[in-house]
Amino acid sequence: MKILDGKTLSEKILKQISETVQSISARPPRLDMIIVGNDFASEKYVMMKEKKAKEVGFDGAIHRLARDCAESEILQKISELNSYDLVDGFMVQLPIPGNHDSRKLIDTISVEKDVDGLTSTSLGRVFKGQEGFAPATAVGVMKLFAEYEIGIKGARVVIIGASDIIGLPLLGLMQLQGATVTIANEFTKDLSEITSQADIVVSAVGQPKLIKSKYIKLGAVVIDVGISKDPLTGKLSGDVDFEDVSNVAAYITPVPGGVGPMTVACLLENTLSAWKLKTQVS
Amino acid sequence: MKILDGKTLSEKILKQISETVQSISARPPRLDMIIVGNDFASEKYVMMKEKKAKEVGFDGAIHRLARDCAESEILQKISELNSYDLVDGFMVQLPIPGNHDSRKLIDTISVEKDVDGLTSTSLGRVFKGQEGFAPATAVGVMKLFAEYEIGIKGARVVIIGASDIIGLPLLGLMQLQGATVTIANEFTKDLSEITSQADIVVSAVGQPKLIKSKYIKLGAVVIDVGISKDPLTGKLSGDVDFEDVSNVAAYITPVPGGVGPMTVACLLENTLSAWKLKTQVS
Repeated sequence: MKILDGKTLSEKILKQISETVQSISARPPRLDMIIVGNDFASEKYVMMKEKKAKEVGFDGAIHRLARDCAESEILQKISELNSYDLVDGFMVQLPIPGNHDSRKLIDTISVEKDVDGLTSTSLGRVFKGQEGFAPATAVGVMKLFAEYEIGIKGARVVIIGASDIIGLPLLGLMQLQGATVTIANEFTKDLSEITSQADIVVSAVGQPKLIKSKYIKLGAVVIDVGISKDPLTGKLSGDVDFEDVSNVAAYITPVPGGVGPMTVACLLENTLSAWKLKTQVS
Repeated sequence: MKILDGKTLSEKILKQISETVQSISARPPRLDMIIVGNDFASEKYVMMKEKKAKEVGFDGAIHRLARDCAESEILQKISELNSYDLVDGFMVQLPIPGNHDSRKLIDTISVEKDVDGLTSTSLGRVFKGQEGFAPATAVGVMKLFAEYEIGIKGARVVIIGASDIIGLPLLGLMQLQGATVTIANEFTKDLSEITSQADIVVSAVGQPKLIKSKYIKLGAVVIDVGISKDPLTGKLSGDVDFEDVSNVAAYITPVPGGVGPMTVACLLENTLSAWKLKTQVS
């Protein structure tokens, strides 16, 4: 059994980005973030992204809106950043508190600046293989496959969880590369029967230790995107029962240190790509 | 074995559209079409759509561009129709001859007028369940399921063929309704093993009589979206060996008279929806 080491790979990617930024004679890439309210977890994520962005030499600003702000204020801020030429990419930290239609708000982000890959247009482009940005977590998983030379074409893949952020874009990316992908959800019957036929299983549901060894074919690749609090231990846990599944899987991502660290690195790489595309044009 | 009769259902839908149009006191819905060159099959499709659109009382115009026209002319025509308020929906007949990037051209269609559901934004919205248009053929398949009360939630579905026009949007629509969908492609190994586990098999590859009874579980639903010339007989044929598969399937679409007639009906229904959405607003 081999560990898919996202921590090391993400550091390698961050180092490459940093070197590219250092070689840029013009202004560095700029990533802005909008945060509505001050949810503890959201704050933490935004701070972490800001820290890593600074470390690789990016510019950036955080735009804070009040928890109870009007929808028009969020739209106004998005519109400002869409038209502000110095911003290469920006994102709205989710969840947006209150009763807003987050998807409608997100869809007003210019596709060229949608480095979080969350607009409908970005998702459509991912499925069609057109130029655009996929969500960083999905990109991170693909980079792990590439790094460890895990073949995708013709592989049978099961993705558990059909979210906009991970399940759907990853389905898009993997089918484009010729995988035969099954997307499972909460209504799937006989999940273990389906997953145990797969060469690659990706779990992204947030259910601690859902995936046991009986779900996994001998020699399969197991990617754990879930992270949730285990009610038994109170500790953060992945979807995969690591110890148990380690007995059968050929490759497995640990939690933490697997997919998690890849996400920030790939968000910054998307931003670098947005910067490159823009500076090529202008 | 029961036939999924798309001919009868499509006539029912066309009749409903026609009745709605008759009850409209304002101007009727309008569907325009752009055709580049004069490919025989494309001409035939456009004529058929125009005929049906007239029959239900729609307005419409066909915009013809020369086979060797500049890309800027196509873009200009799309832009005109985007801004022409009297046009509720329009489509560009595919394939566009020449070396154009069809997807890029199609992506310039306003999502509100994209009744053919072919823009990246429309596809993304289909996957996320947001308001928008899915390609008519995919909608037609969903309508057949609804008409014959075929359960989708929790069903195991295999879609063969991952095209923008049918495979991908149908995957989006079915997973939204809680199906466990597998999307197969030309690299899929052991296709018959995978399809024979499915409650519903949809084939959309254009390979005459690819799907035999051994591909199908007893009592499954079989949807044939393929149409191609059988090299043995010279006749048009579906992907499914109808006679053979009829022995095991519970429901099956014939070719012709299955999915085919649903496509035009659903395109017109999409156009009616576009008209409704617009007239609600303005």
